[in-house]
Amino acid sequence: MSKPAAKPAALFNRVALIGVGLIGSSIARAAKAQGAAGSIVATARSAATRKRIAELGLADQVVETNAAAVEGADLVIVSIPVGACGPVAKEIAPHLKAGAIISDVGSVKGSVVRDMAPHLPKNVHFVPAHPVAGTEYSGPDAGFAELFVNRWCILTPPEGTDPAAVEKLAAFWRLLGANVEIMAPDHHDLVLAVTSHLPHLIAYTIVGTADELQTVTRSEVLKFSAGGFRDFTRIAASDPTMWRDVFLANKDAVLEMLGRFNEDISLLTKAIRNGDGDALFEHFTRTRAIRKGIVQIGQDSASPDFGRPHPDLPHEPLPKPYASEKD
Amino acid sequence: MSKPAAKPAALFNRVALIGVGLIGSSIARAAKAQGAAGSIVATARSAATRKRIAELGLADQVVETNAAAVEGADLVIVSIPVGACGPVAKEIAPHLKAGAIISDVGSVKGSVVRDMAPHLPKNVHFVPAHPVAGTEYSGPDAGFAELFVNRWCILTPPEGTDPAAVEKLAAFWRLLGANVEIMAPDHHDLVLAVTSHLPHLIAYTIVGTADELQTVTRSEVLKFSAGGFRDFTRIAASDPTMWRDVFLANKDAVLEMLGRFNEDISLLTKAIRNGDGDALFEHFTRTRAIRKGIVQIGQDSASPDFGRPHPDLPHEPLPKPYASEKD
Repeated sequence: MSKPAAKPAALFNRVALIGVGLIGSSIARAAKAQGAAGSIVATARSAATRKRIAELGLADQVVETNAAAVEGADLVIVSIPVGACGPVAKEIAPHLKAGAIISDVGSVKGSVVRDMAPHLPKNVHFVPAHPVAGTEYSGPDAGFAELFVNRWCILTPPEGTDPAAVEKLAAFWRLLGANVEIMAPDHHDLVLAVTSHLPHLIAYTIVGTADELQTVTRSEVLKFSAGGFRDFTRIAASDPTMWRDVFLANKDAVLEMLGRFNEDISLLTKAIRNGDGDALFEHFTRTRAIRKGIVQIGQDSASPDFGRPHPDLPHEPLPKPYASEKD
Repeated sequence: MSKPAAKPAALFNRVALIGVGLIGSSIARAAKAQGAAGSIVATARSAATRKRIAELGLADQVVETNAAAVEGADLVIVSIPVGACGPVAKEIAPHLKAGAIISDVGSVKGSVVRDMAPHLPKNVHFVPAHPVAGTEYSGPDAGFAELFVNRWCILTPPEGTDPAAVEKLAAFWRLLGANVEIMAPDHHDLVLAVTSHLPHLIAYTIVGTADELQTVTRSEVLKFSAGGFRDFTRIAASDPTMWRDVFLANKDAVLEMLGRFNEDISLLTKAIRNGDGDALFEHFTRTRAIRKGIVQIGQDSASPDFGRPHPDLPHEPLPKPYASEKD
């Protein structure tokens, strides 16, 4: 296809997306918006999702199999639950173009490297990636082009990976708005265990706890959730399949962080039981500083309540019987 | 003072606010916007806060003592940490106007009733209240008039309270945009232990845990917080004095909920350790429904990420060396 002369060249001629959920469809939208791909070919396991990808115009071409998707692709991004990455690597391996970059978006990197690398041929570049971004929604409709802007994408290339391939994938993610960091897979898994996996496990737990109480009804839990609980429900609404796989794949680091969390909650529990107000106050003051740091480096909004909308006051007339009262 | 004839009569001639932080100043702003008070007199413990109240124009009159504030007031609202409510009740008791309604905004109700009621004279109406609303910010500058719109305000009148006084305070809160629910103090404390106090304790804990790790730096925790952690930091940035008092005052209910939470996290920990993906998937699917319920009844935003802003893509030129690449 001929292009207008002014349009900059794409980073990759042909990008293949295997799996087009929240992350895959956001990559498709952002890559298109930024002209990062000459063309995008996409596939998904279910016929319904493939149909939806076509309807949304997320790809130049929608194909039925993973093998067909990677044919001739310069960049292949696998955006599926981490537990499915190994079998997909095995399936696509014979069809990969020599010199192609193979990547993923999984939230666990040690297991992805162990599961995918052995299947991939020597003549491709395997550069695992994890864009630390997302929302509580899933599926191809949930994605948007701005998802990765100002977020971090962590690359965990195995030792010996061609630095040019790493840099080219980094350039792709930067074009999508992300900052890029290089990390060893095991260190990535430890960092994300605390900044992502443990918070999700805690949120899933507390939402379940609240739902099982006999003394407090579900209706009460929902109505009075603005006291703090509702913040946890957002995270506990994340995709169940994705998160099941994360906890199975990053078991050791998650159990390690859980152990530390349990020690800390025991200390605070003891302070409450003993009425030790000083210990509580000291702890609660310290944690406030962390929030400030996150807002300062632009990783969260400074607006109260994350900037949630607050409807206007109704300015209704005074309710009876007070409407007639004289002051 | 004469008023234009068209202006509706205020619910209360004179409203006294003791304590003008996030909640107190939001009451002042909302009451003014809605014409709920003929006049507002305010006080605060520190001279700096009193000065700020005057600068912000939050009250018609700013006075130096609690005794002066309640003089002639038809409604007194004490908006201070729950641990300070008893002494303040004792202090204001001799100065209260006969027939006045005395209320508060504390997050614990059993202890507030126990601490305040014995000091109050028989000729006033004590109607404790808890508006379930707030943000992570504190102080008189943090308030806004819309804070209570569509939120619930729980009233916990002691047995034998005049129903007309309860209804009049309910009308005041409805005028400020809130929905009103009547509850027994002990049941309130159980409900809030799960929808507010436990979430805060968990958030304070996990943010502290993350900050003490040797293997993951604070800089990494901040940078990669978009994986879920940053949601917890908002809650863990709440006012330390207020929350110290909440945990001391609602000890029994919080310890009860903590016990249940610990049982549930043990079950999920075991599922992770045993690689029981089905148990994890089942749990994670169930919790998703709670989020839907909260959004459906208008207690949270349906927008992804709570509606946090997502900056636009930069549309920058391709980074070198790719800018000159032909496709």
